Amino acid sequence: MDPESFLDIANQVVKLKMFPYFDVAHSLLCALSVKEDLGSGAHQFSRKHPLSTWLSTMLVVFAGGMVTNGLLGEPILAPLKDTPQVIVATLCWYIVFYTPFDIGYKFAKFLPIKIIASVMKEIYRAKKIHDGVVHAGKLYPTAYIIMITIGTLKGNGAGFTKLFERLMRGCWTPSAMEFLQPTFYTKASLVASIIFVLDKKSDLISAPHSLVYFGIVIFLVYFKLSSLLLGIHDPFVPFENLICALFFGGIWDSLSKIINHNQAKEEAKEVKKTN
Amino acid sequence: MDPESFLDIANQVVKLKMFPYFDVAHSLLCALSVKEDLGSGAHQFSRKHPLSTWLSTMLVVFAGGMVTNGLLGEPILAPLKDTPQVIVATLCWYIVFYTPFDIGYKFAKFLPIKIIASVMKEIYRAKKIHDGVVHAGKLYPTAYIIMITIGTLKGNGAGFTKLFERLMRGCWTPSAMEFLQPTFYTKASLVASIIFVLDKKSDLISAPHSLVYFGIVIFLVYFKLSSLLLGIHDPFVPFENLICALFFGGIWDSLSKIINHNQAKEEAKEVKKTN
Amino acid sequence: MDPESFLDIANQVVKLKMFPYFDVAHSLLCALSVKEDLGSGAHQFSRKHPLSTWLSTMLVVFAGGMVTNGLLGEPILAPLKDTPQVIVATLCWYIVFYTPFDIGYKFAKFLPIKIIASVMKEIYRAKKIHDGVVHAGKLYPTAYIIMITIGTLKGNGAGFTKLFERLMRGCWTPSAMEFLQPTFYTKASLVASIIFVLDKKSDLISAPHSLVYFGIVIFLVYFKLSSLLLGIHDPFVPFENLICALFFGGIWDSLSKIINHNQAKEEAKEVKKTN
Repeated sequence: MDPESFLDIANQVVKLKMFPYFDVAHSLLCALSVKEDLGSGAHQFSRKHPLSTWLSTMLVVFAGGMVTNGLLGEPILAPLKDTPQVIVATLCWYIVFYTPFDIGYKFAKFLPIKIIASVMKEIYRAKKIHDGVVHAGKLYPTAYIIMITIGTLKGNGAGFTKLFERLMRGCWTPSAMEFLQPTFYTKASLVASIIFVLDKKSDLISAPHSLVYFGIVIFLVYFKLSSLLLGIHDPFVPFENLICALFFGGIWDSLSKIINHNQAKEEAKEVKKTN
Repeated sequence: MDPESFLDIANQVVKLKMFPYFDVAHSLLCALSVKEDLGSGAHQFSRKHPLSTWLSTMLVVFAGGMVTNGLLGEPILAPLKDTPQVIVATLCWYIVFYTPFDIGYKFAKFLPIKIIASVMKEIYRAKKIHDGVVHAGKLYPTAYIIMITIGTLKGNGAGFTKLFERLMRGCWTPSAMEFLQPTFYTKASLVASIIFVLDKKSDLISAPHSLVYFGIVIFLVYFKLSSLLLGIHDPFVPFENLICALFFGGIWDSLSKIINHNQAKEEAKEVKKTN
Repeated sequence: MDPESFLDIANQVVKLKMFPYFDVAHSLLCALSVKEDLGSGAHQFSRKHPLSTWLSTMLVVFAGGMVTNGLLGEPILAPLKDTPQVIVATLCWYIVFYTPFDIGYKFAKFLPIKIIASVMKEIYRAKKIHDGVVHAGKLYPTAYIIMITIGTLKGNGAGFTKLFERLMRGCWTPSAMEFLQPTFYTKASLVASIIFVLDKKSDLISAPHSLVYFGIVIFLVYFKLSSLLLGIHDPFVPFENLICALFFGGIWDSLSKIINHNQAKEEAKEVKKTN
């Protein structure tokens, strides 16, 4: 492929219209994740508490927008103002939870469908991260921490609202906090946010903007596919281990352990000698 | 009663001034509900933690305004800006919790007083739902979901803040989430919100606005009285059961159970035959 | 000291620049408190979850601003917009948690260092309370409750976010709610807020503003030092006991107990007589 046509594709991807197809894919996967989070009691629970499943699905679908709006002092409910989008999400919720003989659920779980929806969701995710960084950058042009935070939250909002989503279903799991064990999506959103911030606010990245954007889309899609098909769940782990060893005590802790051990040995020897 | 005088009454009800009598009734019932939620340990708890009981009573009294403000990006504390209203709520809290020999509590619990206060509270509720729908409609003229949500939350805010109100008293009950088992007040507020939205935004309801408003007041008061006096707690249950059976799996689940059962029988027969 | 030079000092204190020295002291103590809240597992936890410790430290450092912004409908993330301040807080977090051989932690725990930092933190606290009251007073000129609330929350924000800070570390302690057992800092911030409100909004306090401010600084520093050096943790307790006895049931409860006791005795006597 010659570089120009590649740039053309990148420009196309940047301008991609999200509604309604990408919203359908996103909502479908969100409803699926809610149903799967309910575990084996999902069927019974959904029959008893339709309001609760609807609300938690809506919370998952619009999580990114709601959380970032809450943190930026904008109306938390604003993401619901687009009625067609809410209707699409509601239809997806209904299809996954209440179609006769669980047809909708089985359809959404069917691997080819799931792969296509996942790829679309990742493309959507890139757009959300980008929009989040741009929006925060307009509000606080020099607050890099805020831009990165908003980008990350837009990218994986559902991860951070998981506690509240479960609370809406009467279930409270404080140890499932995203910050304790960030998932791959959070880390990827963080990296993507940092790249977008560098792209917007510094001269470090000289590539055209649409190429940076396209690169992030490919990165997200690639790792999603490798997670779905090959079972590679977190390519960041080796880097994390390295950083933890270098900066967060790893090496120094080992060093101090060795020193303590040697000291203890020497003391033991001296004790022997004096005896 | 001739129709005109009826319309006159309706117009009077629409213009009814709420402060201070309706606020007193509302605050009194809120303080009562906090004390009753504390159960048998209420007396001891209130002596040990006056700040905690005051804060949770304030949260219950101003719940609707606080929750909706929080969701609409407006100051959560704004409902407290009306100092006379806060003083009224504080007096009610003091009367219910700390009058000598529990006179205040016994007075508020006295049935005729409670009935009058409850009726006034329902009239207030109708006004709050109406104001909530109008306010949300001004902010988002086409977002019906937001209007209905805000109306419902204004109508029964205390139901949704129950978890946080209990948390303020050091008690955490995640399974008491309102969404799991919506109370009658939530459902009635929801219905009232939908009617107000239809009245404002469509031509489906041709009756004059004040009549619609008055109708909702009568509906709320009627069911409150039948709950207090006759013990009918939730007239929505039959409709819910019908809807659940039709749309949320009821019939289809039974159908699939029958089919599975028949299949199992036939298989058993075939197994017998082959044997 | 002659009164004029005293007023001069007071004026100096009012104008004191906070960044960076006071921010360093504040952040250092905040990181210390997070580490100590983790208890004996702090070392292991900090190695496993650096993101979690960083976020909870940031939440503690910027607690006052975040909570009050949240309650006043302003962006919760806004306190992070000052990048140098975030960098200072991050450095303090790193020093306390991850310096080799725990040097940073031991340094911050060293009594003279801790005393100096604590004194600086109290001066900072006075400024925060003052700014909070002034800010709320601009938004709601007649809402005294809001001014006092915001002042108190600015003064001891970390106390009120403790639950969420622990939640970020996967730990949930609903009974540690600040409202149940307000700490000395909360009470002192409350008193300081009330004095500032009286100073701004009434003519009760005729002293010049800078003297009032300086008086509160001295009050906060004095009790901090007496807590650190003499172990006097809460000088408010006697006043509280008095108020509780007078207004929150103390005396009346005893009275009703005595009456009940006497009644029971008399009834017992009568029973004896009739027998």
